[in-house]
Amino acid sequence: MAVIECIPNISEGRRSDVLDACSSAVRSAGAQLLDVKPDATHNRAVYTFAGDAQQVTAAVLALMDTVIRNIDLRQHKGEHPRMGAVDVVPFVPIDGVTMAECVTLAGEVGAEIARRHNLPVYLYEEAARQPARRNLEDIRRGEFEGLAAKMQKPEWAPDFGPSTPHPSAGAVVIGARMPLIAYNINLATNRLDVAKRIASAVRHSSGGLRYVKAMGIALADRGIVQVSMNLTNFEKTPIARVFELVKREAARDGVAILESEIVGLIPSAALTDAAAWYLQIEGFKSEQVLENRLRME
Amino acid sequence: MAVIECIPNISEGRRSDVLDACSSAVRSAGAQLLDVKPDATHNRAVYTFAGDAQQVTAAVLALMDTVIRNIDLRQHKGEHPRMGAVDVVPFVPIDGVTMAECVTLAGEVGAEIARRHNLPVYLYEEAARQPARRNLEDIRRGEFEGLAAKMQKPEWAPDFGPSTPHPSAGAVVIGARMPLIAYNINLATNRLDVAKRIASAVRHSSGGLRYVKAMGIALADRGIVQVSMNLTNFEKTPIARVFELVKREAARDGVAILESEIVGLIPSAALTDAAAWYLQIEGFKSEQVLENRLRME
Repeated sequence: MAVIECIPNISEGRRSDVLDACSSAVRSAGAQLLDVKPDATHNRAVYTFAGDAQQVTAAVLALMDTVIRNIDLRQHKGEHPRMGAVDVVPFVPIDGVTMAECVTLAGEVGAEIARRHNLPVYLYEEAARQPARRNLEDIRRGEFEGLAAKMQKPEWAPDFGPSTPHPSAGAVVIGARMPLIAYNINLATNRLDVAKRIASAVRHSSGGLRYVKAMGIALADRGIVQVSMNLTNFEKTPIARVFELVKREAARDGVAILESEIVGLIPSAALTDAAAWYLQIEGFKSEQVLENRLRME
Repeated sequence: MAVIECIPNISEGRRSDVLDACSSAVRSAGAQLLDVKPDATHNRAVYTFAGDAQQVTAAVLALMDTVIRNIDLRQHKGEHPRMGAVDVVPFVPIDGVTMAECVTLAGEVGAEIARRHNLPVYLYEEAARQPARRNLEDIRRGEFEGLAAKMQKPEWAPDFGPSTPHPSAGAVVIGARMPLIAYNINLATNRLDVAKRIASAVRHSSGGLRYVKAMGIALADRGIVQVSMNLTNFEKTPIARVFELVKREAARDGVAILESEIVGLIPSAALTDAAAWYLQIEGFKSEQVLENRLRME
């Protein structure tokens, strides 16, 4: 059975009746709801669910219907940038499904949402059909309030739907990406400069590893510092390589690694790959993992 | 859903019609047949299947019925020690099930087999009700040919069933144990003495780690040597600790580790534990593995 993860972000983080209605919509569609994280300050909620292509499609469409009925961006205020009532919908290949299939799925779901609700849809990341739309931040710049003007420019015509925003729901960004791993490494020091230097050394934007975003922060209550990271493609930039590079850079400053932490969920393969790397396992196949065999047949 | 693995060894490794009938029996009972490994020299086959308690119980009983109809130990010759037509039946907790539940299951299945076939049953390993019966080799010593005499001794009265062997099927040993991991480490040397010394250093029987069996062997065709191991409890003697100890002992002799290999199946937890150890992940929970969450609900 194919397993696709889907992590829609919606522009509501306060009204529990609306949040509950969205959860019910996802569950009723047959997807497995794994997590709901509302944030009142951001006035935004992140839903995480999984299923096969049919289940996640049904869940996204049901969620969209529920949100359109309940959220009006003209009344919405919150700290987090947003341009849609359903703001962003990434599909993530987990098991028995390729990235190419998730890209196709993003296109199909996007077309259907545009048709149903007469709502503009942009495709991003792996599903982007133009290089300038790979990056979510570029699409969302200007937010809901600036969307009507932005959409007048030919280069910001949507991939599906009308060339004007939906009055209450704005536009939605749909795409496909690798699983994101939130990975932090705590250093046995209170020297923030060391954490910041290491973050700068390992992150892509300043010359580091291709699929690493990183910043150095202080954990003031514990008197230590942290290299806080997002790993955006664990197949191409594996977690073991990130850990070893941070460790080496820390040693340069005479600092040891205290511990690391995975925030939230991590795909099994990211950890088994790390084990295989450290244990120097040759020719390891994921079918050798007993649980994978059980899922396969 | 609980997942129990069951790995019966039967005393037939040559007649494919009998082997196929056994496979069909397991599948028809609703268990998921993962592997069948017949060995003509040993005249023995190892079946690996999985399911919940009800499915694996039904599969063992169906397998027993099929074997009783088709295998007569009075006609059986093979290299491998054996005392039963179905020789040994271990139950292994994999997911959502405790060792205690597998011990209970072994007792229930043992009692039922004794009742159905008037066949003596011994309980071994974690399911053993006497310390002298923990070790399979001790129960099996004397084999089928010596069984009638052995069973005359009061200390070898079976846990269930009659005090004489079944005429054609002997006796069966049923129990519960942790998953066994076949783990080999290849050394970048052709010095067999080094592999043998390391095996002796890490294995339980000569002073090493509690749940490690090991021997040093030559891989003549590759011109290297191997520390060939069975890890019998990866929770108490984790794979990372075994690897690091072998590596350290090899370094003592100026030898590097070339690679390691997992033979056959390994439970996911054995690898994620190793990743968490090397990456120094603090407070890691198996529920953080995305696939485990999907199985849970």
